Amino acid sequence: MNHREIIDTMMEGDLFSQWLGIEILETAPGYARISMKVRSEMVNGFGICHGGISFSLADSVFAFASNSYGEQCVSIDTSINHLRPIRVDDILTATSLEINKGKSLRLYEVTICNQKNEKVAWFKGTVFNTGKIWERN
Amino acid sequence: MNHREIIDTMMEGDLFSQWLGIEILETAPGYARISMKVRSEMVNGFGICHGGISFSLADSVFAFASNSYGEQCVSIDTSINHLRPIRVDDILTATSLEINKGKSLRLYEVTICNQKNEKVAWFKGTVFNTGKIWERN
Amino acid sequence: MNHREIIDTMMEGDLFSQWLGIEILETAPGYARISMKVRSEMVNGFGICHGGISFSLADSVFAFASNSYGEQCVSIDTSINHLRPIRVDDILTATSLEINKGKSLRLYEVTICNQKNEKVAWFKGTVFNTGKIWERN
Amino acid sequence: MNHREIIDTMMEGDLFSQWLGIEILETAPGYARISMKVRSEMVNGFGICHGGISFSLADSVFAFASNSYGEQCVSIDTSINHLRPIRVDDILTATSLEINKGKSLRLYEVTICNQKNEKVAWFKGTVFNTGKIWERN
Repeated sequence: MNHREIIDTMMEGDLFSQWLGIEILETAPGYARISMKVRSEMVNGFGICHGGISFSLADSVFAFASNSYGEQCVSIDTSINHLRPIRVDDILTATSLEINKGKSLRLYEVTICNQKNEKVAWFKGTVFNTGKIWERN
Repeated sequence: MNHREIIDTMMEGDLFSQWLGIEILETAPGYARISMKVRSEMVNGFGICHGGISFSLADSVFAFASNSYGEQCVSIDTSINHLRPIRVDDILTATSLEINKGKSLRLYEVTICNQKNEKVAWFKGTVFNTGKIWERN
Repeated sequence: MNHREIIDTMMEGDLFSQWLGIEILETAPGYARISMKVRSEMVNGFGICHGGISFSLADSVFAFASNSYGEQCVSIDTSINHLRPIRVDDILTATSLEINKGKSLRLYEVTICNQKNEKVAWFKGTVFNTGKIWERN
Repeated sequence: MNHREIIDTMMEGDLFSQWLGIEILETAPGYARISMKVRSEMVNGFGICHGGISFSLADSVFAFASNSYGEQCVSIDTSINHLRPIRVDDILTATSLEINKGKSLRLYEVTICNQKNEKVAWFKGTVFNTGKIWERN
């Protein structure tokens, strides 16, 4: 399976990314760009987008990028910095960049921008390569 | 408003925590314990609970604990370590502990356990105290 | 080699921990407590202890604790929160606690206190277990 | 004071950066690039460069970059990923990039490369702007 087939397979089973309304914009080995629109049911107690929503978007693009080479990789340590409030109806785009590709461990950063191209969140994550291969069912 | 009134007010407006099915188990100044049950719509492309779900649970309890003194606090830097796979129907309990309470910055750790009392995730987060006071509408 | 022999062997080769003046106070499998005194050559441009010094102290106790079971473990992701300024002549004690012990990955937190028992820094770290065994030369 | 004067003033008082042998290669508002050579007294119990050394290098360039606008900024949360072993006699170059510049909070990433231009470590850090201005004594 190539990078796009793997990411499409992941997305098909990823019911939470579907609930988020994630669309895949672009993929390449070690890379993905995705987007979603913030809905009113996604707010926190301050009436702005819950931090878990932007984290989830980043976590999905990170999973797609890190699995796209063909080996199954699982997240072990991730962090996010919230830079600006995100509001209902904002359209978020998340882009994953590979910082390092080791045998067992791979490191990515993800930038999330809103529709005005302002950075709203910044994420980094490390995956562990389980060595299992993504295969057609 | 006391800690419980603040957290109840936050929860009332927090539509995403409501979607998650979060229940508040216990609160005190600087402290909260909450729980939720993982539903099938919360899985990722591996068929296990999406990392964004456990993050969101931790982020909510962290927000409740850090806001409970009365001043509005916003998250600036958070990270999570995923320790064990979380599965559909697992019942997760998240407990927030205060590591440090400064004037402008406060640091918390959150432990998430499943129904077998196994640690499944571990989170830390820093909030910035905006100085605004939680008040009745 | 038992936990103490491993940590003593590590300390013997650890010339930077020796430069820091680190003393080992207590060890157990998965646990260590160490201390050091801040010297005037350890300050940064603000005239207080350089963040790299408190990080190094935490990183050493984390390495000792995570290697103490017998397998060689290497640091992959660590973070530190600076909570209070540390000054020249402060005596710092760093205590490492195990959060999780997986096969490949282990997670620790470290608390650093000064001589007044105030928390001055808080650290977390993940190691990767290489599987190599600590052995006598 | 301009960016270079501030960084020179910081470096003058920064006795630990001097011990590390740090040289300032380039500065601009919000930016700095520095280097150092790893000495034999900087190794850990594995005989490779102690993680605290690469952290300290990153922490210094992060402090220089974030203070270079004129306001005194203090580190609140930093993390580092170690990507490749660093050995004695390696020459390390650390480059700081600004991810976000808020009023109270600023976010930076730092990449450390060795003399072969291989990434050996990757760092991110948040500072809090105290509002105090860097001034000539």
